[in-house]
Amino acid sequence: MNVQHTTDICIIGAGPVGLFAVFEAGLLKMRCHLIDALPQVGGQLSEIYPHKPIYDIPGYPAINAQELVDNLMEQIKPFHPSFTLGERVETMERQADGSYCLVSNEGTVVHAQVVVIAGGLGSFEPRKPEIPGLTDFEGRGVSYMVKNPEHYRDRRVVIAGGGDSALDWTVFLSDIAREVTLVHRSDSFRGAPDSAEKVFSLAERGKIRLLLQSNLSSVHGNGVLSHVSILGKEKTETVLETDALIPLFGLSPKLGPIAAWGLNVDKSAITVDTTDYSTGVERIYAIGDINTYPGKLKLILCGFHEAALMAQSAFRHVHPAEKLSFKYTTVNGVNAF
Amino acid sequence: MNVQHTTDICIIGAGPVGLFAVFEAGLLKMRCHLIDALPQVGGQLSEIYPHKPIYDIPGYPAINAQELVDNLMEQIKPFHPSFTLGERVETMERQADGSYCLVSNEGTVVHAQVVVIAGGLGSFEPRKPEIPGLTDFEGRGVSYMVKNPEHYRDRRVVIAGGGDSALDWTVFLSDIAREVTLVHRSDSFRGAPDSAEKVFSLAERGKIRLLLQSNLSSVHGNGVLSHVSILGKEKTETVLETDALIPLFGLSPKLGPIAAWGLNVDKSAITVDTTDYSTGVERIYAIGDINTYPGKLKLILCGFHEAALMAQSAFRHVHPAEKLSFKYTTVNGVNAF
Ligand SMILES: Cc1cc2nc3c(=O)[nH]c(=O)nc-3n(C[C@H](O)[C@H](O)[C@H](O)COP(=O)(O)OP(=O)(O)OC[C@H]3O[C@@H](n4cnc5c(N)ncnc54)[C@H](O)[C@@H]3O)c2cc1C
Ligand SMILES: Cc1cc2nc3c(=O)[nH]c(=O)nc-3n(C[C@H](O)[C@H](O)[C@H](O)COP(=O)(O)OP(=O)(O)OC[C@H]3O[C@@H](n4cnc5c(N)ncnc54)[C@H](O)[C@@H]3O)c2cc1C
Repeated sequence: MNVQHTTDICIIGAGPVGLFAVFEAGLLKMRCHLIDALPQVGGQLSEIYPHKPIYDIPGYPAINAQELVDNLMEQIKPFHPSFTLGERVETMERQADGSYCLVSNEGTVVHAQVVVIAGGLGSFEPRKPEIPGLTDFEGRGVSYMVKNPEHYRDRRVVIAGGGDSALDWTVFLSDIAREVTLVHRSDSFRGAPDSAEKVFSLAERGKIRLLLQSNLSSVHGNGVLSHVSILGKEKTETVLETDALIPLFGLSPKLGPIAAWGLNVDKSAITVDTTDYSTGVERIYAIGDINTYPGKLKLILCGFHEAALMAQSAFRHVHPAEKLSFKYTTVNGVNAF
Repeated sequence: MNVQHTTDICIIGAGPVGLFAVFEAGLLKMRCHLIDALPQVGGQLSEIYPHKPIYDIPGYPAINAQELVDNLMEQIKPFHPSFTLGERVETMERQADGSYCLVSNEGTVVHAQVVVIAGGLGSFEPRKPEIPGLTDFEGRGVSYMVKNPEHYRDRRVVIAGGGDSALDWTVFLSDIAREVTLVHRSDSFRGAPDSAEKVFSLAERGKIRLLLQSNLSSVHGNGVLSHVSILGKEKTETVLETDALIPLFGLSPKLGPIAAWGLNVDKSAITVDTTDYSTGVERIYAIGDINTYPGKLKLILCGFHEAALMAQSAFRHVHPAEKLSFKYTTVNGVNAF
C-alpha cells in the first residue's frame, strides 16, 4: 500500500522558502505537507553551502546557511508540518472538486486543497557515474543518497566519491555497517580537511578500506547487486563482494517534472502574478527561486515576502467560508495547532 | 549656517525598512543618509513596542522589536550610513541635473541622487496638551521629545506624562538636571512598573519633585518660558519657575508633508510599481508601510524585499556608467566602505 497524506497545502520543495511558507500558512490556520527530492530539508542551503555564512538575511549580520534552516524549522514547529523526504513529485492532477492529487516517484500520494511550488532551481538529482548496467541495480543495491542509515546496519557498503558527502557517510557508516570501502579517483579529497583526516585515520586503524586513485569499473549481480569491480592505478582490478553501492558524486538541480505540468515557464522559471504569486492555474502558486516576474531577484529574503502574500490568497481556497483578517504576530501571537 | 549633506541616496524614515535599505544599497556601492522625525532609529518598533516580541521575522522564532533594530544597525555598519534624527523632511525639490534637494523643519539640507521614502505611517508627531500659548514657547523652553539630554544639564526641568518616556526621562535627567519635576494626572503610571518604582523612590529621597493627580494649566514667560502653572487635586495651583517644559504624551504618526509632494497617494499610502517600488516620479522610490500596491501587506518582511528590488533599480541613477551584476553575499562577501 502506498503512503497517503491529506492536507490543506502541499508544498513542493523544503528549501528555506518552502519552510517559511509553512509559517505564513500556519498563521492563517492552514496545515502543510512538504515533499523534497533531497533526504534532508533546507534546499540549496543544506545541500550546497551548509557551513557558509549568508550576510543578507535581514536582522542577521551573518548566519550560517544550516543555522538559518534550523531556525526556520524551529519557527514552524508550532504548526506541525509533515514531510516526505527523498522523493520527487512526478505528477499533479486536478480533482473534480478543484483540489489536487500529487504522486511521487515512489508512489506516495498527497491530496491537497492548494499546491505551492517552492522548487528552487529544480529537484536535486544525483550525478551518476557512467558504468554499464548501473541503473539496472537502482533500488536493488545501488542508491545515490543515504535516506536512512539504518538500512546499512551490518551490511557491506561501497561508497564512491571525494566530496563532503562521501567523507561524512564513510565516517558515519563505519560505525554501523559490517564493512565500508571508500573508492576515490585521486589521492586527496575535495571535502573538509578534518573529515578527510578522520577517513585516513579510520583506514590506518583498519576500520574501513580506502581505495585511492581508483575508479568504479563495473557492477554485477543476479537481479540484486552482489559485486563491484574497481580499477586501481596501473590498471589493477579489485573485485569486492558487497550488499550496497553508494556513488556520491554530487547532486544538481533539474527542473524535471515541473516543466511538464502545463504552467507558464520562462527560462526554467514559472511566471507568476506578484499580487499573490499565483501561477494562473487555479490553486497553484509558485514562490522562491522557481518563479519569475519583472524585477525578480533569486534571493532568500524575496521568497519570504512571496510566501506571505501567497498565504493570504490561498486562504480563500482552504477556508472559503471564513473571512480573512490581517493581524500582527506581536499583537495576536502564534496560535499553534 | 545650516547643516548640509551630500549623498547617493537620501532615505526618509529610519524604521526597519529604511535601515535595511542601507544594506541593500551598500551591497551595490551606494551611500545613504537617513532622516527621521524621531530622536532615535527604529520607527514603530522603537517608538511603539520596543520590548514586545515579533514572531514573523523569518529565521527568528521570536525577537524583541528593539533587538531587531539593534541587529539591523549592526548589519548596516559596514556601509557607514549618516543620520539626521529628530527632524522632519518638509520639502523635496528636483534639481536641473535630476538630483534632489531635501530640507528639514530645522533647515538641514540633503542633496541626493535618489530619494527613498520609507516613511511608514508618517512622521511621528507629538500629541500636544491643550494649553493656551504653549506652541509659542516651542523651541524657547518647550519641547516634546528629548533629542540631546546634555541640553538639560544644570537646568530646571518640568516633565509631564505617565508613560514610559515620561518615567524614563525623569529617571535619566534626575542625574543631569538641577531640578526635575514630574507632573502626572493620576496616581499610577501606564509605564513599566520597575520604572514607576524608580520614580517613586527618587521622589521619596527628595531627588525629584512628583506632582500626582495634577495637570499643566498654563505657561508663562517673556519670549522664553520662565514659569509653569500646575493644577493639583482640590484645584490647588502650584507655580514653578523652570527653564524647560517637556510634555511627553506620546507620539502618533502623521503623513504630514509626504502628502504634499505630488506623488500618487491612495488611502495615506504612495502607489508604486512592484518591479522596483518606484513611485512614477523619476528617482523617487517608496518602500515599507508607506507604499501600496495590489496584495500589499504592512509587514516588516515585505519591506525588506521591497528594499532589495529598489536598490537594483536605483543603481542606474547613482552609477549610470556602470553595469550592475547580481551577486550572492555568500559568494562575494560584504565589501565595506
Ligand atoms: C553558493 C550559493 C550561495 C548563495 N548565497 C546566497 C546569499 O548570500 N543570499 C541569498 O539570499 N541567496 C543566496 N543563494 C541563493 C539561495 O540559496 C536561493 O535563493 C534559495 O535556496 C532559494 O530557496 P527556495 O526554497 O526557493 O529553493 P531551493 O533552496 O532551491 O529548494 C528547492 C527544493 O525543491 C526541491 N524540489 C524541486 N522540484 C521538486 C520535485 N519535483 N519534487 C520534490 N522536490 C523538488 C529541491 O530538491 C530543493 O530541495 C545562494 C546560492 C548558492 C548556490
Ligand atoms: C503594535 C504593533 C505591532 C506590530 N507587529 C508586527 C509584527 O508582528 N510583524 C510585522 O511584520 N509588523 C508588525 N507591525 C508593523 C511594523 O511595525 C511595520 O510594518 C514597520 O514598522 C514598517 O516599517 P517602516 O520602516 O516601513 O516604517 P516605520 O517603522 O513606521 O518607520 C517610518 C519612520 O519614518 C519617519 N518619517 C515619516 N515621515 C517622515 C518625514 N517627513 N520626515 C522624517 N521622518 C519621517 C517616522 O518618524 C518613522 O520613524 C506592528 C506594528 C504595531 C504598531
